[in-house]
Amino acid sequence: MPTLWTGRFGGEESNDELRAIGDSLEFDRRLYAEDIAGTRAHVAMLAGSDLINAEELSAILEALDRVESEIGSGTFEFDVNDEDIHTAVERRVTEITAAGAKIHTGRSRNDQVAVDTRLFTRSAIDRIVDLIRRLQATLLGAAEESGADVVPAYTHLQRAQPVSLGHYFLSHGWALQRDVERLTDARTRVNTSPLGAGAIAGTSLPIDVHATAKELGFDRVFENSIDAVGDRDFVAETLFCLALLGVHLSRIGEDIALWSSSEFGYLL
Amino acid sequence: MPTLWTGRFGGEESNDELRAIGDSLEFDRRLYAEDIAGTRAHVAMLAGSDLINAEELSAILEALDRVESEIGSGTFEFDVNDEDIHTAVERRVTEITAAGAKIHTGRSRNDQVAVDTRLFTRSAIDRIVDLIRRLQATLLGAAEESGADVVPAYTHLQRAQPVSLGHYFLSHGWALQRDVERLTDARTRVNTSPLGAGAIAGTSLPIDVHATAKELGFDRVFENSIDAVGDRDFVAETLFCLALLGVHLSRIGEDIALWSSSEFGYLL
Amino acid sequence: MPTLWTGRFGGEESNDELRAIGDSLEFDRRLYAEDIAGTRAHVAMLAGSDLINAEELSAILEALDRVESEIGSGTFEFDVNDEDIHTAVERRVTEITAAGAKIHTGRSRNDQVAVDTRLFTRSAIDRIVDLIRRLQATLLGAAEESGADVVPAYTHLQRAQPVSLGHYFLSHGWALQRDVERLTDARTRVNTSPLGAGAIAGTSLPIDVHATAKELGFDRVFENSIDAVGDRDFVAETLFCLALLGVHLSRIGEDIALWSSSEFGYLL
Amino acid sequence: MPTLWTGRFGGEESNDELRAIGDSLEFDRRLYAEDIAGTRAHVAMLAGSDLINAEELSAILEALDRVESEIGSGTFEFDVNDEDIHTAVERRVTEITAAGAKIHTGRSRNDQVAVDTRLFTRSAIDRIVDLIRRLQATLLGAAEESGADVVPAYTHLQRAQPVSLGHYFLSHGWALQRDVERLTDARTRVNTSPLGAGAIAGTSLPIDVHATAKELGFDRVFENSIDAVGDRDFVAETLFCLALLGVHLSRIGEDIALWSSSEFGYLL
Repeated sequence: MPTLWTGRFGGEESNDELRAIGDSLEFDRRLYAEDIAGTRAHVAMLAGSDLINAEELSAILEALDRVESEIGSGTFEFDVNDEDIHTAVERRVTEITAAGAKIHTGRSRNDQVAVDTRLFTRSAIDRIVDLIRRLQATLLGAAEESGADVVPAYTHLQRAQPVSLGHYFLSHGWALQRDVERLTDARTRVNTSPLGAGAIAGTSLPIDVHATAKELGFDRVFENSIDAVGDRDFVAETLFCLALLGVHLSRIGEDIALWSSSEFGYLL
Repeated sequence: MPTLWTGRFGGEESNDELRAIGDSLEFDRRLYAEDIAGTRAHVAMLAGSDLINAEELSAILEALDRVESEIGSGTFEFDVNDEDIHTAVERRVTEITAAGAKIHTGRSRNDQVAVDTRLFTRSAIDRIVDLIRRLQATLLGAAEESGADVVPAYTHLQRAQPVSLGHYFLSHGWALQRDVERLTDARTRVNTSPLGAGAIAGTSLPIDVHATAKELGFDRVFENSIDAVGDRDFVAETLFCLALLGVHLSRIGEDIALWSSSEFGYLL
Repeated sequence: MPTLWTGRFGGEESNDELRAIGDSLEFDRRLYAEDIAGTRAHVAMLAGSDLINAEELSAILEALDRVESEIGSGTFEFDVNDEDIHTAVERRVTEITAAGAKIHTGRSRNDQVAVDTRLFTRSAIDRIVDLIRRLQATLLGAAEESGADVVPAYTHLQRAQPVSLGHYFLSHGWALQRDVERLTDARTRVNTSPLGAGAIAGTSLPIDVHATAKELGFDRVFENSIDAVGDRDFVAETLFCLALLGVHLSRIGEDIALWSSSEFGYLL
Repeated sequence: MPTLWTGRFGGEESNDELRAIGDSLEFDRRLYAEDIAGTRAHVAMLAGSDLINAEELSAILEALDRVESEIGSGTFEFDVNDEDIHTAVERRVTEITAAGAKIHTGRSRNDQVAVDTRLFTRSAIDRIVDLIRRLQATLLGAAEESGADVVPAYTHLQRAQPVSLGHYFLSHGWALQRDVERLTDARTRVNTSPLGAGAIAGTSLPIDVHATAKELGFDRVFENSIDAVGDRDFVAETLFCLALLGVHLSRIGEDIALWSSSEFGYLL
């Protein structure tokens, strides 16, 4: 069977098609700030571990600032060979300073993908928890303002028992509180540094995994490199939390739609 | 339009069909132990709050013991009118002692469904966490036994780097550790007492929600009755944890299948 | 590593646990009628192909009748070694007549699982399509009865435009019509005979796959044995159709709940 | 409660936030070609029904060509008030020719969203079916080329029976054939014209729904306007077909990965 696919990898056309399949830049360019933050922490550690010298560190940090500003302002020119954001950043840093070639020391692509995804997820959780808390404050404010008014509580859309409007508003607030708790629990699992796991079995270089973890605000360092490289549980868990949050928001939305109907007429 | 469905609710046949749709006994009979435990705690509280007297309490507790033993041994006779396990238990207790009629005091069907589901989920989590820990111990034992042997670590099924067999075994153990952590986090949200929320707006009777919560081993009491009645987040969260656990177990299973192939030949 | 799991397969206790994992009787006993129907067609074909003789055929058919009646009436005694419904039926038939030992000729367990599942799914589709048609008739009857009355059509629960009640009823009927079409399309893919695919590569015996297919009402015979053994697409497709049907039924249910509220008051 | 949300709709800031929530341009700009095609058919019908005159038709068609070319070449300037692609196209056409104001005659936004989504889905199905057929041809070619070679067929990754390589290749081809059949069945349900359903209850203008349906290549016209406006079943059905196609492609991918391992060594 060796002749089956072998022949297909020769021509130029196939190479382009395969590159298109492999490219992830369209998706992972959103991770550029995280990728640069991770690289800053990594090179600082390399300097601290005497794997690069002070001038190299300084040149790389300056180049990273410039790359971040270029991407942020939309002036960064992506190259057809930039297959992902990690390659793009490293390629450009190395154009700016020859020291850029040392960025890869003691760090694999797997490391970068894992750390960027964790930083991105962590910051998404923080932003969303903040938004939930603002919504809870709105509900609390509404409860304080008109909370003593009495409205029907419904079961199966039938009027069941009278409740205060404040009790109703707070019922949504308490459901959202579980979302905050769940996201906070998820965050502890997100916030583990995978740096140093390498391709799958770590690295033989004397890197300091605690230094990069601390610099990037991680709470703990991975325990097992095979697990660290493959673990995306934290993504699934965060998405689950958001799906459940979506259920709660949808419930609020449905109440607003219902109350805005001319038949209910509570919100006009 | 009033004539549309009205006519259909008259005959006997329709009543049977509607009853069949409403019946949940086939599913919720699995909750009988939880239902009886919840009722024991409830009547003890009723006695403590002087809502029933000591003789009534004693008669009901004895009847509950008998019902539990009947269901456990398969001699319990379910009635065609027992639409769910809660009705069945209460009906039988009341047959045994007239005091059974007071079981319902200060407790709604919603209360019972919610408390039974929480007790069942909590006990399922405890059983599963225990099983995970046994599997982790097996993996640890395997790592200690043959852990120094060297095997290839694979990326995309290609041999990537050599690792010790112990490192491989523990990679599964650490993934399972996240399952334990997640289930433990979920358990704190499962372990909230909904007793006292009533149909949706609580009860006007002087019941002691802290007494039942304590008796049943709950960590906290619900904060808002509307939320408590409707909250099934804990079921979704537990199922998510189990789905992710399933992914990890499947990964172990796939490795065993792969290693058992004559091509790999690691397990013969 | 050979010692790792080897040791665990020796004792009695492990055997019981493994058997419990492997047993599917609790689930597949529901397939008993399909299993017996499939076996009837199979042995008739064996006789037609001179692989069993007329006496054997007659003895087996009689035994199958008896087994069907035993299971149907609840008098069938399942054995602890009956790991699935296929084993149970074959074991009992062989108890009744020694000819039962020939049932397995030219037919694998994979064949049986596949054919039973297809027969069960086909009959479920037929039953459900019939129920949908009855619901459509009810909607049509309602449209004819009160269809000229005018009600508001809602967008986002706001009264948008007046429509006739008949137009509203028929809107549900047309959605259900797509369910009928989809299930009918799915049925053509369900209705392919997998008999003869064997374990994965067919059988060397001179069986007549067209005879069994015709006897069981299948429209076509599998084209490729590897695909036939593994194909469960038809289950996924049927479940998808039912999920979408569920959405449509839920929409009707939600309208009934909404219209039954005292705020809407259309159904009292 | 009327004061609760009312106050929030006054300020400029809220307007911007609400607009951001309502905007769908980021997603639906991909539908621009379908939107323009739908509008071409609509205005041709308006002219045929004497709802616009020949000069207006000609001016609008010319403007539509220009808009299509502007969007296609990236020179189209989207406006902050273009909340979706339908608004954007109509706004620009009206800038080019005053006759553009008549585009909306007898057609609602709901009509446009529905027709664009159907055209887009139909063309996606056609493209994907074509790609599947190419993959089937590749598999057939491989079967013809090396099909007589014998390889093991595996069950549970254990070598079960020898099969020809051609039999193996075609097993994937037959699974893909079901995907073609399913997508073809789905296409008949996609290919229904919703034009004329209006907001929910049709339109009182004398439009010709058969003319637009024919012009756009639809096989049939909707039967019920309420159903036509709300129906997105075809999207769910197409996504289901693609999910199942994904399973089949993943199976091919897994075999390639497995066969490329040094342990299997079939593809080197």
